Amino acid sequence: MTEPHHDGSSLYVSDPNPSLGDVVRVRVRVPEGWGATRIRVRVRPDGEPFYVEAVRPHAQSHPEWWEAPVTVENPEHPYRFRLDRGDGTAHWLNARGLHRLDPRDADDFRIVAGNVPPAWSAGSVMYQVFPDRFARSAAADGRELPDWTEPAAWGDPIEPDRRRIALQFYGGDLAGIEERLDHIQGLGVDILYLTPVFPARSNHRYDAYSFDRVDPLLGGDEAFVSLVEAAHSRGMRVIGDLTTNHCGDAHEWFQAAHGNPGAPESEFFYWLDDAQHSYVSWLGVPSLPKLNWNSIELRRRFIEGPDSVVARWLQPPYSLDGWRIDVANMTGRYGADDLNSEVRRIIRRTMTEVNPDTLLLGEFTGDAAADFVGDAWHGAMTYANFTRPVWNWLRTPGSGAGGGLSMIVGETQDWDGTDVVASHREFAAGFPWRVRTRNMNALDTHDIPRFVNDARPGTVPVAVGLAMTLPGLPVIWQGDEFGLTGSDGEHSRTPLPWDELDAAADRIALYQRLAGLRSEHPALADGGLRWLYVSAELIAFARESVDEVLVVVAARSATSADLGLGVAGMIVAEGSISVADGVVTTGGAAFGVWSLGRADAPAWSASS
Amino acid sequence: MTEPHHDGSSLYVSDPNPSLGDVVRVRVRVPEGWGATRIRVRVRPDGEPFYVEAVRPHAQSHPEWWEAPVTVENPEHPYRFRLDRGDGTAHWLNARGLHRLDPRDADDFRIVAGNVPPAWSAGSVMYQVFPDRFARSAAADGRELPDWTEPAAWGDPIEPDRRRIALQFYGGDLAGIEERLDHIQGLGVDILYLTPVFPARSNHRYDAYSFDRVDPLLGGDEAFVSLVEAAHSRGMRVIGDLTTNHCGDAHEWFQAAHGNPGAPESEFFYWLDDAQHSYVSWLGVPSLPKLNWNSIELRRRFIEGPDSVVARWLQPPYSLDGWRIDVANMTGRYGADDLNSEVRRIIRRTMTEVNPDTLLLGEFTGDAAADFVGDAWHGAMTYANFTRPVWNWLRTPGSGAGGGLSMIVGETQDWDGTDVVASHREFAAGFPWRVRTRNMNALDTHDIPRFVNDARPGTVPVAVGLAMTLPGLPVIWQGDEFGLTGSDGEHSRTPLPWDELDAAADRIALYQRLAGLRSEHPALADGGLRWLYVSAELIAFARESVDEVLVVVAARSATSADLGLGVAGMIVAEGSISVADGVVTTGGAAFGVWSLGRADAPAWSASS
Repeated sequence: MTEPHHDGSSLYVSDPNPSLGDVVRVRVRVPEGWGATRIRVRVRPDGEPFYVEAVRPHAQSHPEWWEAPVTVENPEHPYRFRLDRGDGTAHWLNARGLHRLDPRDADDFRIVAGNVPPAWSAGSVMYQVFPDRFARSAAADGRELPDWTEPAAWGDPIEPDRRRIALQFYGGDLAGIEERLDHIQGLGVDILYLTPVFPARSNHRYDAYSFDRVDPLLGGDEAFVSLVEAAHSRGMRVIGDLTTNHCGDAHEWFQAAHGNPGAPESEFFYWLDDAQHSYVSWLGVPSLPKLNWNSIELRRRFIEGPDSVVARWLQPPYSLDGWRIDVANMTGRYGADDLNSEVRRIIRRTMTEVNPDTLLLGEFTGDAAADFVGDAWHGAMTYANFTRPVWNWLRTPGSGAGGGLSMIVGETQDWDGTDVVASHREFAAGFPWRVRTRNMNALDTHDIPRFVNDARPGTVPVAVGLAMTLPGLPVIWQGDEFGLTGSDGEHSRTPLPWDELDAAADRIALYQRLAGLRSEHPALADGGLRWLYVSAELIAFARESVDEVLVVVAARSATSADLGLGVAGMIVAEGSISVADGVVTTGGAAFGVWSLGRADAPAWSASS
Repeated sequence: MTEPHHDGSSLYVSDPNPSLGDVVRVRVRVPEGWGATRIRVRVRPDGEPFYVEAVRPHAQSHPEWWEAPVTVENPEHPYRFRLDRGDGTAHWLNARGLHRLDPRDADDFRIVAGNVPPAWSAGSVMYQVFPDRFARSAAADGRELPDWTEPAAWGDPIEPDRRRIALQFYGGDLAGIEERLDHIQGLGVDILYLTPVFPARSNHRYDAYSFDRVDPLLGGDEAFVSLVEAAHSRGMRVIGDLTTNHCGDAHEWFQAAHGNPGAPESEFFYWLDDAQHSYVSWLGVPSLPKLNWNSIELRRRFIEGPDSVVARWLQPPYSLDGWRIDVANMTGRYGADDLNSEVRRIIRRTMTEVNPDTLLLGEFTGDAAADFVGDAWHGAMTYANFTRPVWNWLRTPGSGAGGGLSMIVGETQDWDGTDVVASHREFAAGFPWRVRTRNMNALDTHDIPRFVNDARPGTVPVAVGLAMTLPGLPVIWQGDEFGLTGSDGEHSRTPLPWDELDAAADRIALYQRLAGLRSEHPALADGGLRWLYVSAELIAFARESVDEVLVVVAARSATSADLGLGVAGMIVAEGSISVADGVVTTGGAAFGVWSLGRADAPAWSASS
């Protein structure tokens, strides 16, 4: 260790889930040779800077550890460290790292009071299911299909006509998912995330025409209750998917108001003419009319209180364990309106009233930090801090065009390891630690190409390994465990080839090994993150809790790095990776993890 | 020019003051040798990224200029440029500069719709007056002083006892200011900023006991009307100072509610006991009870509507031209309450209703960017982006302890020119251009030591020159033109030595020369800012409008830089500064400005 370090983990913060007014102790670890002579914590209660002196309560046994008490005065409590050195210089330590010049307030570390995320969420592994394409039960054969569907057989290719692609209907259903829970849980998965299950007029169902019942084409409410109960009986959780930015144009609310200015639901939408014929919609797509959250009645029906849609599905008999909110970034935003923070807080308040042990995730594909301050969303479905840096490092240079990712942050670029760490730090710094550890670490999703499509040779274990070991909630997008390819979001939605399970055995075993790390090593859930080594080809970092220090090494090619590691403690070796005289050597893309025992940190004492 | 450039000035943005829904054209200037093959503007309407292609509408005459139309969809409209190069690489250009890796959204450029700052505000020079210490009219001799005052003669030193320092009363008054308007205007000043003039129980009057009348010790309402009228008749503006975070404990509202739970004013404050004896106050100072903006009645009396305090003083006969709001950063913030954006928007809305041609500035001593998004405050009284970098460059290394500045961003440090530019860019990037050009460029104020106190030899002209030429509203703190010293905020408040006007003639002439630049060269008001050269000892930049390009050179010691400048066009030379063969050479601390004629930019056309 050569640099001062702090993060939001329990090694450095005495209480990660304080209430307003609590005194929380924060620590910074400073190598003795660094020469710190005085350390202060800069806090900003009610917006005004204020300094708290740090001391070394364990100077004899642990001279590297400085500590200071800070009172949590506001729900989002920012702080950073000022470190004075014997040579007269001073440095700042904040969520982006160590700085000689003055840093900006937005990069402060942050403690969040209230809105505690469920305890089960940090250590979990999530599996994303797109119901129409996951698995089809026998019951599906008997269902009459509505006019809008263009039925496809399970083995058919994806419809090439973009105008008809959302209508192609394979008929996967909830019973199909329930029949495959062994497969999902066998991967090491704890959380099942279902994309929308409400009735709609497309295969993706993001255009719901009701939020009051499960699509009969999926098996209806009965199949839903059965699936959730089956998952719960295995100790798994189930998360639903809700569109708060828009609904479908076939939705009963929209149908009531469209062309009918007298309807009570008129205020639910943004109309562009008095006759209420034209209206604002998501990215101009007419089937997705945008919701107007100025409406108190819309809030009452959809998000506020125990009778709302948000609440209803968390209660028995449905008993969902949380929501992923679609297009969270646009929700409540239109023209001069910005009701986003109001809407997200109401959603979370309603959830807390019904069942506080629920998880709320929001989709914000780009730089989500400004909205993810801990007041509502527990974590982000975002691509900026994990997906994008990993792609830019591990995909074949010049491959693809970035596909669906381009809408987020521009086409894929060719980055070396230093860039990856720099970009990850840059985007992750904006989140409170508690949010950062719930951000979805998704290599890919239903909206983007599959990572494997243009991956460098042998890098899948590296990418999956990083998803499982960096702070965040690892997500397996259905089919990745089969090695499926897909050049864009639409082509990532091919039905799962259940008759190829045997051929996929190696890939499935890889997921089992790497996902298994999460349950076996709690330090991966909320342990601190400290960068150990970065080169163009290799990245090494530690995840540290009081109970265990893990060292993770990821390389994209044959290289070596002197990390002072031995053979002892090596618990994962994917690809050609070996160690001798402290030097880790890879023969190509490789991923390794070492478990090095307890952290050398003083225990938190009540009196310190 | 070696790098692509854009800023919010009228060279690069077709309409700096658009309305919601307007199409604004934005330009980026890219040296042909840089190799751009495609440029897009990334906007985020309603929170979702979206790209607009840029073209070269004047490819023949001005191949360096790319242009794209962007629709202003939200009141704060963010954008940045993506530049693809022929070699396959891509870069981002945002308010912090040019980046190879993905930048964060917070660093986007921003156009603001609505809340247009008054036209007169950008090109102005401000003079800050602290009434008790500026000048004392003959009328002051006849006034009976209240018990709390500890009268001092004009030549007395500042009271050494910190507990009594706020009571020391020199008796400066408004008539004294009016008598000296020749002096103030003679410096090149357009805006008079008065610290509080409401009756209080301290010499600084930030503890007002009424907002309904001007302190009789200053001459009362009559003297106030006379001063404002005299200033207006000279074409000057006058700004008042209002505390929205707190009032004085002698205030009629607080007196009514203190210990009296039945009083209507009870809801104006934060009480810590049911009997309403103890209460929340500014930094725990009991004389400054904190206001609770949850109260609708407080809003009505103080900030909302034409009968409010905010409105009253902008209307005849008082006719103030704007407000500087004290402790804007803490206003409306306490514990779980964060009403800051609501309060500031109400203040501005009220001002607009009464007189839209008024200016609203807010005090936020640190990194103010998060609150200064263009929705209310036109500019910030902040020390982070101007004062602090200039101090760190031009003050004697190791001098002072930073005094009052330490409460803001830590003690003064020793920075070279590169650090100064880096830090200025870092903190300035957070502001929309229109706010940035109204931020107060104060070398010092009544709250901090005087710059000159520990300045390196000969650097006063450099510091004053930077205040006048960098984007922002230059501020002269009363007495700087006399060369007064002061080791902290309190000792910066010494009465002005009017009998030493002759001795101060050189310093006064310096201010006249440099302040005069603002009125003679509109490019200093809202021209673009482009960095030309930076070394440890010298900083050079251009301020560019269609009509004029100015080059500014600031050096803190003997040095030289090849800037391609000639003798022609040199309009300012403070200190030893000369030019030969394009090379600028200084013999010590020096400041120079060149006027180089019109910018080589295509005109905005209606059709482009």
